[in-house]
Amino acid sequence: MPRPRNDTFLRACLRQPTEYTPVWLMRQAGRYLPEYNATRARAGSFMGLATNPDFATEVTLQPLQRFALDAAILFSDILTVPDAMGLGLTFAVGEGPRFAHPVRDEAAVHALRVPDLDKLRYVFDAVRSIRRALEGRVPLIGFAGSPWTLACYMVEGAGSADHRLVKGLLYARPDLMHRILDINAEAVAAYLNAQIEAGAQAVMVFDSWGGVLAERAFQRFSLEYTRRVVQALRREHEGERVPCIVFTKGGAQWLEEIAACGADVVGLDWTADLGQARRRVDDRVALQGNLDPMVLFAPPAVVATEARAVLDSYGAPQRVDGRWGGHVFNLGHGINQHTPPEHVTALVEAVHAHSRRLRNASAI
Amino acid sequence: MPRPRNDTFLRACLRQPTEYTPVWLMRQAGRYLPEYNATRARAGSFMGLATNPDFATEVTLQPLQRFALDAAILFSDILTVPDAMGLGLTFAVGEGPRFAHPVRDEAAVHALRVPDLDKLRYVFDAVRSIRRALEGRVPLIGFAGSPWTLACYMVEGAGSADHRLVKGLLYARPDLMHRILDINAEAVAAYLNAQIEAGAQAVMVFDSWGGVLAERAFQRFSLEYTRRVVQALRREHEGERVPCIVFTKGGAQWLEEIAACGADVVGLDWTADLGQARRRVDDRVALQGNLDPMVLFAPPAVVATEARAVLDSYGAPQRVDGRWGGHVFNLGHGINQHTPPEHVTALVEAVHAHSRRLRNASAI
Repeated sequence: MPRPRNDTFLRACLRQPTEYTPVWLMRQAGRYLPEYNATRARAGSFMGLATNPDFATEVTLQPLQRFALDAAILFSDILTVPDAMGLGLTFAVGEGPRFAHPVRDEAAVHALRVPDLDKLRYVFDAVRSIRRALEGRVPLIGFAGSPWTLACYMVEGAGSADHRLVKGLLYARPDLMHRILDINAEAVAAYLNAQIEAGAQAVMVFDSWGGVLAERAFQRFSLEYTRRVVQALRREHEGERVPCIVFTKGGAQWLEEIAACGADVVGLDWTADLGQARRRVDDRVALQGNLDPMVLFAPPAVVATEARAVLDSYGAPQRVDGRWGGHVFNLGHGINQHTPPEHVTALVEAVHAHSRRLRNASAI
Repeated sequence: MPRPRNDTFLRACLRQPTEYTPVWLMRQAGRYLPEYNATRARAGSFMGLATNPDFATEVTLQPLQRFALDAAILFSDILTVPDAMGLGLTFAVGEGPRFAHPVRDEAAVHALRVPDLDKLRYVFDAVRSIRRALEGRVPLIGFAGSPWTLACYMVEGAGSADHRLVKGLLYARPDLMHRILDINAEAVAAYLNAQIEAGAQAVMVFDSWGGVLAERAFQRFSLEYTRRVVQALRREHEGERVPCIVFTKGGAQWLEEIAACGADVVGLDWTADLGQARRRVDDRVALQGNLDPMVLFAPPAVVATEARAVLDSYGAPQRVDGRWGGHVFNLGHGINQHTPPEHVTALVEAVHAHSRRLRNASAI
């Protein structure tokens, strides 16, 4: 497979010089795009879309045809892994995911196994298909849910406002929770390594629910298992470094600990001040983020102003001492389904133009 | 009115010596208590309960009859203030609050006025009635929503998962948002001062939705207006200091800025490590919190262990240099409606017993 023509994203992840700040958006292939909705209608369902490599390829590439994004992200879902464990994933229309067989008692925990990766072959086929379709235009990011975030859905059986069941299990039976997390960590690491072998050029771990935990519980039940995943990852494939991104929604106050887990890049939600965050990690990792997705509902001029404020907060990636930081521009969370697509155009243009100016200004 | 017999809570707020760590629970009068549900059934509705001083007094005192809590909190709702502005508050069964007339356009913003406090007389009557019924047993806390948190409900018209409408207004028309917040700040300050004059011995500002904002927006649209409220409060009544508590859910990463707003006490949700938080504020304010409410679903022995961990994290309030910090034990959020009441008994006992031990150990 050819080296990507635009590798700005990969260089920023690895804190190497770049001419501008690369940008991609979490859930960039999604319901805010009419072409996505058309493909989804043809596929019949979300899982019909995600499990068909042709459809997955089509929707993965859709946002790149509209916007000058610097990376593609595999179209899939974090819950493919527990689905492959036999928990029976469905997405009802207008609702979130639901498992037919949630893991709520000792017997269910003891029956859990690391899934046969062959059940996830459709994902690796999609990775290969997307890499071919991209023709090296931009790098492809693979991803998985963190062990803790998967456990939230596996125990609750669906999304939850208070995580009462999964936290109840954590506090009442930490032994069972650790067993679930052990299995999830092994499964997630194997899953991401298989994505890398299929052609993913970077991987991201989504700890979407890490931020709902108390500090001590976060360290023991979320970050510890994310660390195990990161430590088990292949970091090079076909002679190229494969950067790893860890994103903990609501995790900004634990930034130093997360940054020490071995990831190349730490993703931040919009509540963090990026400049403060950069000083806290002292450029030991790159940072990804962190515009509030709701900014995209303001007029394009405001979108551009807010995007520049995020870039200014991070500052020029090249430091006075000549070392480079690394900033990957993104939203602080997935793009909202009601977002006007033309506002995304304004965002991407502002990020590219202003980040070039920042580099030129700092070079003077 | 007599000085409260148990003023441990007030002394902890003011960082004065206490024999043990006082404890109360956000939403301690609520649906997890069968006696509350019985009274609510008699009142017919939530607003029927909140607007009747006799019912409000009855439910405010219910948790004190079961548990050795160190403070009472006025039974009311943060949305009484926008209701008095004419927005038409209702609580449908099984749903959250809803406004008949949300504030969504320029005309609605310009029509907003600081409400006549006479429309909130039922609240001040309840404060007076509760003080009489308490007979000085423990202090009574009054409360209000922060200007930003009220604005969230006023614009959205109900609770919201993404705060799209209110953030859209904030980014697109900051002038209108500042106008709403100006009015809210004036109304909230007057409302809390009237509660103090009626007999509230401490007041708490709930910034329940401050944590959904980006860092810069939080400073400008939430904390700035909370600061105005705090600065406008009466801090003494009938010769007694009236402590002020500010609680920003999701605000732990902005702790230093919040602690500088003029409040005596900063409330923290369960994601913060209390010991780290104490070091960050260096005992310039007292701290309130911060057990995960979901711990109360674990067996009583685990509840006690987790409560002791929170107390140990804060440490002994008396410092080596003789100065006192201040810790008010609480949950990091409102108590869940499914909580077993007997686990609350275990919690209160553990807090009282272990915090006495901590003081004795540090005195040796």
